[in-house]
Amino acid sequence: MKVYKIAVIPGDGIGKEVVPAAIEVLDRVAELDGNFQFEWTYFPWGCDYYLEHGEMMPIDGIETLKQYDQIFLGAVGMPELVPDHISLWGLLIKIRREMKQSINVRPAKLLAGLESPLKNPRNFDITVVRENSEGEYSDSGGRIHQGADEIAIQNAIFTRKGTERAMRYAFELAKNSRGSVTSATKSNGLTYSMPFWDEIFEEVRKDYPEITTSVNHIDALAAFFVMKPHEFDVIVASNLFGDILTDLGGAIMGSIGIAPAANLNIEGEYPSMFEPVHGSAPDIAGKGIANPIGQIWTGKMMLDFIGQQKAGTQVLTAIEKTLASGIKTGDIGGTSTLGEVKESILSYL
Amino acid sequence: MKVYKIAVIPGDGIGKEVVPAAIEVLDRVAELDGNFQFEWTYFPWGCDYYLEHGEMMPIDGIETLKQYDQIFLGAVGMPELVPDHISLWGLLIKIRREMKQSINVRPAKLLAGLESPLKNPRNFDITVVRENSEGEYSDSGGRIHQGADEIAIQNAIFTRKGTERAMRYAFELAKNSRGSVTSATKSNGLTYSMPFWDEIFEEVRKDYPEITTSVNHIDALAAFFVMKPHEFDVIVASNLFGDILTDLGGAIMGSIGIAPAANLNIEGEYPSMFEPVHGSAPDIAGKGIANPIGQIWTGKMMLDFIGQQKAGTQVLTAIEKTLASGIKTGDIGGTSTLGEVKESILSYL
Ligand SMILES: CC(C)[C@H](C(=O)O)[C@@H](O)C(=O)O
Ligand SMILES: CC(C)[C@H](C(=O)O)[C@@H](O)C(=O)O
Repeated sequence: MKVYKIAVIPGDGIGKEVVPAAIEVLDRVAELDGNFQFEWTYFPWGCDYYLEHGEMMPIDGIETLKQYDQIFLGAVGMPELVPDHISLWGLLIKIRREMKQSINVRPAKLLAGLESPLKNPRNFDITVVRENSEGEYSDSGGRIHQGADEIAIQNAIFTRKGTERAMRYAFELAKNSRGSVTSATKSNGLTYSMPFWDEIFEEVRKDYPEITTSVNHIDALAAFFVMKPHEFDVIVASNLFGDILTDLGGAIMGSIGIAPAANLNIEGEYPSMFEPVHGSAPDIAGKGIANPIGQIWTGKMMLDFIGQQKAGTQVLTAIEKTLASGIKTGDIGGTSTLGEVKESILSYL
Repeated sequence: MKVYKIAVIPGDGIGKEVVPAAIEVLDRVAELDGNFQFEWTYFPWGCDYYLEHGEMMPIDGIETLKQYDQIFLGAVGMPELVPDHISLWGLLIKIRREMKQSINVRPAKLLAGLESPLKNPRNFDITVVRENSEGEYSDSGGRIHQGADEIAIQNAIFTRKGTERAMRYAFELAKNSRGSVTSATKSNGLTYSMPFWDEIFEEVRKDYPEITTSVNHIDALAAFFVMKPHEFDVIVASNLFGDILTDLGGAIMGSIGIAPAANLNIEGEYPSMFEPVHGSAPDIAGKGIANPIGQIWTGKMMLDFIGQQKAGTQVLTAIEKTLASGIKTGDIGGTSTLGEVKESILSYL
């Protein structure tokens, strides 16, 4: 029996509700499979922890997490209580970086039973590969002068290593997908980072002659997500552009509450972290009405990553059957509770 | 008789087709009004000019343009022939900056007769105020090392002056609109520029107690453009975020070929520039099938700006009647030519 040791960080807001639901589902597919099981260890880190201890996680938090096979995270952030740049850079972004989870993978896919806000969407199935460790999200910059003359500078830092790694990962994925990679750029406006990005894309694509490529500016690409999402297969994007495109991806699927994500350490040196696209949604937290599908689908991504694809497919099928049967939370036009959605998914496994 | 001296830069690709069409419409409303007229002076600057002269416009181009009341521009860019960062920084972005057109205003509005790709859009009418002179679009940055170790840095530079100017403009617009301003931020990921942006927004809004405000991260806001665009009135955004949101705005209206824009020098020191959101679309240029509505609606924005609102409203009404009568180009589901759309708009004036 294979045992996976998973560190669980429910985090804040609805994270505390959707994570336990997803864990029930994951335990059930493992039990049905019979050849593997999970060992979950909970860490109560997040904004509550911060309010008590003055930090989002203990000083040795990262070292602790390194002892686990993977990390399963809910959501982080309570902007009313803790400024976002503290809560996120103290936990979510900190883990992404210190664990070298340099690739973020997020699918956007038309699911059976889910109503897209698009009028007549043709079947779309996009995978966004987001560079997850550098780029526009840098802690480099500063301010000068005060009052009317004040200036703030934010440095976006792109390394060839980080850029190439994300691109190669995208090309590898495309081999097992529909054979096409689109690069999100903005080299017409940003004159250093994005021409660099384009050059590297141009080089990397030469190593994959069997893959079709295209390049779009982020503004146009955002519009294409609305106008013709079915034309895309794998998209490779910088940290910020990937962030924007994947929320848009959630929107065209029908809800950000659905969209899953994986922060991957593709070298396998440290654990990867599985965390849905949605945030902590403090406004609906604690009411039992949050959509657990983003978190459960995120669990499917973890299953796939650890090599349990059969179980992963079972989970996605159960999600689709649940949606098709009309058992949905409010954000996607239903009236069901979190618990009802979870029970339905369990019953379809 | 008031005479407006307008510098016309058709630019590249479809710019050369849609600009003359829009000028016909503008001349006609002026004639119908009887109290003002336009004097158009053409400048053949753009990529063809570059291929011949090695620069996008003459050295004294900016000085020349300063002699006009306003600038009416088509589209710039022929990426197959001239790299975007040359064509755009040598003309479009150069004019925006050297003429201190620090505010870019772009509406996104559900137009009668236009099919939105959204399923059941409620009536939306958004105005995006984009900071147009600094921020992420900076020519500051560089590279270090070669080969595997190469690094590119792009500096985003936000001044209080530029940021505050865009915000105050947005608040002023909101007074004459539905009284709400939304700020596009990303202070949870970008730790210098966007917290600065948020602080200034927080200060500026205190001067407008009658205006309702909200703040959204750009990723969520992009998703909201798809899920609930009717909830927004005026949005204030940085250069890059405004760029992305306004292409999205074009998409939810039905086509980027529709969306108009104004690059405003609000101090009135230099001419402003009116230029649609769409690009030069080299793939369909010269075929007479481009959608002239973006350019014509851009003409309406120029009319409004110079104080000819009555004529401006006439133009928009004629556009809506044309769309409602089914006379549309291919990009918005019709079969009409550019010429037919123009004739129809002329006939409805
Ligand atoms: C062509 C490009 C530089 C430009 C921009 O990004 O400003 C365009 O997308 C726009 O929105 O006017
Ligand atoms: C919360 C925030 C810092 C984060 C990001 O921008 O990476 C989130 O939007 C995401 O996409 O995971």
